[in-house]
Amino acid sequence: MNAALAHLRKNREEHIAWVEELCRIPSISTQTEHKGDVRAALEWTRDLCTRHGFQARIHETGGHPLLYAEWCQAADAPTCLVYGHLDVQPAGDLDLWDADPFEPVVKDDWLICRGAADNKGPLLAHIRAAVAWLATAQRLPVNLKFLIEAEEEIASPNLGPFVENNRDLLSCDYILISDTAMYADGWPTITYGTRGICYKEIRLSGPKHDVHSGGFGGSIANPANELAKIIASLHDADARVTIPGFYDQVADPSPEERRLMAALEFDEQKYVAELGSPAVFGETGYNTYERRACRPTLDVNGIYGGYMGEGASTIVPARAGAKISMRLVPNQTAAQIDRLFEQTIRQRCPKTVRLEILDHGRCDPYMAPLDAPAIRAAERALTEAFDHDVAFIREGGSLPILPMFKRVLGVDSVLLGLASPSCNAHGPNEKVRLPDLDRGAEAIARLFGYLAQ
Amino acid sequence: MNAALAHLRKNREEHIAWVEELCRIPSISTQTEHKGDVRAALEWTRDLCTRHGFQARIHETGGHPLLYAEWCQAADAPTCLVYGHLDVQPAGDLDLWDADPFEPVVKDDWLICRGAADNKGPLLAHIRAAVAWLATAQRLPVNLKFLIEAEEEIASPNLGPFVENNRDLLSCDYILISDTAMYADGWPTITYGTRGICYKEIRLSGPKHDVHSGGFGGSIANPANELAKIIASLHDADARVTIPGFYDQVADPSPEERRLMAALEFDEQKYVAELGSPAVFGETGYNTYERRACRPTLDVNGIYGGYMGEGASTIVPARAGAKISMRLVPNQTAAQIDRLFEQTIRQRCPKTVRLEILDHGRCDPYMAPLDAPAIRAAERALTEAFDHDVAFIREGGSLPILPMFKRVLGVDSVLLGLASPSCNAHGPNEKVRLPDLDRGAEAIARLFGYLAQ
Repeated sequence: MNAALAHLRKNREEHIAWVEELCRIPSISTQTEHKGDVRAALEWTRDLCTRHGFQARIHETGGHPLLYAEWCQAADAPTCLVYGHLDVQPAGDLDLWDADPFEPVVKDDWLICRGAADNKGPLLAHIRAAVAWLATAQRLPVNLKFLIEAEEEIASPNLGPFVENNRDLLSCDYILISDTAMYADGWPTITYGTRGICYKEIRLSGPKHDVHSGGFGGSIANPANELAKIIASLHDADARVTIPGFYDQVADPSPEERRLMAALEFDEQKYVAELGSPAVFGETGYNTYERRACRPTLDVNGIYGGYMGEGASTIVPARAGAKISMRLVPNQTAAQIDRLFEQTIRQRCPKTVRLEILDHGRCDPYMAPLDAPAIRAAERALTEAFDHDVAFIREGGSLPILPMFKRVLGVDSVLLGLASPSCNAHGPNEKVRLPDLDRGAEAIARLFGYLAQ
Repeated sequence: MNAALAHLRKNREEHIAWVEELCRIPSISTQTEHKGDVRAALEWTRDLCTRHGFQARIHETGGHPLLYAEWCQAADAPTCLVYGHLDVQPAGDLDLWDADPFEPVVKDDWLICRGAADNKGPLLAHIRAAVAWLATAQRLPVNLKFLIEAEEEIASPNLGPFVENNRDLLSCDYILISDTAMYADGWPTITYGTRGICYKEIRLSGPKHDVHSGGFGGSIANPANELAKIIASLHDADARVTIPGFYDQVADPSPEERRLMAALEFDEQKYVAELGSPAVFGETGYNTYERRACRPTLDVNGIYGGYMGEGASTIVPARAGAKISMRLVPNQTAAQIDRLFEQTIRQRCPKTVRLEILDHGRCDPYMAPLDAPAIRAAERALTEAFDHDVAFIREGGSLPILPMFKRVLGVDSVLLGLASPSCNAHGPNEKVRLPDLDRGAEAIARLFGYLAQ
């Protein structure tokens, strides 16, 4: 292991050059004109893997292809599956970038480029760690599989089917993923839980077209007013969701989790100042960190109806609607919450308007067992590499691949975030801290060793 | 009077030709390219008036000009002021018209053309009545003034100032207006009340831009959810407005009004079937006619916020807003309701979001005294001309000119509607029933006689 770590330090510049080279490929999965670039990023990575002793193959799917690579010569050793993605978001408004989004710039400790943080830099940290072992010991302490897709930014339509159809190929003991954020710059972080989501849209309709609010107002139900009543009814005065049964399956944080949360510094004033909201707000009885990490929510993501332009129009709208999503926590399931939501909305919608409910997808929450050996090994590896204790956090967003891996492969994931909270993934001047990538590669090299023990 | 009525019958075809000729002028006040046509319609009408013995003059304003004409040689007789407008709405989608919108077509009893019902045909009924008196008696039984504007379809920005600045010129005992609808085809109708309006917009803002509903949902107030709560709070379970003081000035219909309302046929099933709403709905304790005519309302005219496009976006919106208008009834005043609304919204808006309230105009309700001699005279004239009892109705919409005339000139208006409820004013194939125009002209000729008595 020490040889591998020395190799990482010695070859750091070459390794960072790999990140830069990969970042130069504009592998934007959302734009058809970049289809060739997406494949080029996969091919570049395949070649890197094969050059260093992996067996690697690009698999076609209905959309962008994906890359599978493996080194599985460690008999009797456990098997790790590393997941990552090579596709990136579009650059967006070029005027907001300080330089060409696909020409890496190093400034102080940061590498600035689209894809540097999400997910090319962190993904390559795993390959760097493997290469260091193979270059120095001619072997890895574990069997290692890479599953690298190129459709993460378009909701991974072909990943689930590929995993379902390749259970044996992908069978493993541990899954490692570096596609989350660190709690703070330089603070190594393990994300052990993500919220699920159930996303619905409700549409109410009344008169067959917008009608004059003078001639008809007061004599028929107004879909926008009725919509507001339904939405308002979904929370009580304690900001709790009033859907019957909504909290029945919610698991409270364990004492161990509470201890980990207490170790996190959280500045509420700074938090709201950065967001721009006048104050924090949320469910009574929980602090801000808990509200965004451990508690389920119900948010209107969009609302519309009637005249939305400038000025005024005196109509009773024919239609009004709202996009409403609920974030879910263990042990809620999206299917169960979907059922309860529909049932409640149908009950609360008056007969004076027509109701339609649409679906916009769902995903279960996920939580890794904190006492799993892989988590403990990752904590040790990160603590040593960063010379800093590890932040254990739950993420408020949703990662559908985690419950999918658990369901199909039966394996939990270890999420070692290497992106800074200020990395601006998806935004202009996306960046990654190079020391975090270097220490991350060291931590992963250590982790391979610890997982073999 | 009998000679005048005989003249009307004898010259009916020439008079209808006047309507057709005037309708051919596309006097669309909203479109700059029709500026000349708007003036042409005023000039055509001025010439018609002067040809028959009126003194008539076109007055310039900051916008379209207006026409004032008078015959004031009936010493000791009362003075009537007739208000009307010569501008029309744009034709709209030509594909929805069966013929050229500005080429009158007569089909069965109907004259189909833009402006035929709103307001050229009904306005000319007053001129026809005056011409019949002047042609047969060489005099009118009353002094008669015409105030004819060409900006009604753009909210009459210059009418109020003109009236304010010309109180003496416009001084009168009665105001006659035929710019409302009949209760049913062939049922002569006097509209004796209109609702007022107070139109506001509330905007809530939270985070400085839309933020991820996973990362932040549950920890800050969501402007769309808070907006829904405020809107929902504005009605109680009886569909009454909960703004404190909202009903304090509301006058209940008098026993006389109740008698008049009872005489109206109102088919609720047909009403909702035509609107397309699943059911009638409104304030407990009132029927559908009362709810739209005699009761104040609060309607959301438009609501917006967050992601309103197709599909889904997982955001907590930075902003959400609603356009909200209240229809008012005697003796509410728009200024007082405006104050109560603002006060209530400011009280109910939580401190976790920012609030902005915008103004979109207001207008007081209006009610003519049912026992006024002019109303009784109009009832007699209409009953005789149509050989049918008169419907007395309140209109749910707002007519700012009525409280303006009352305030500035101190005179109540008599609204003799001559347009059919199915006239489709502002829509395609606008039409007017020729027998209603003919009987209307006869009724007005009689009314001039009765008002002189």
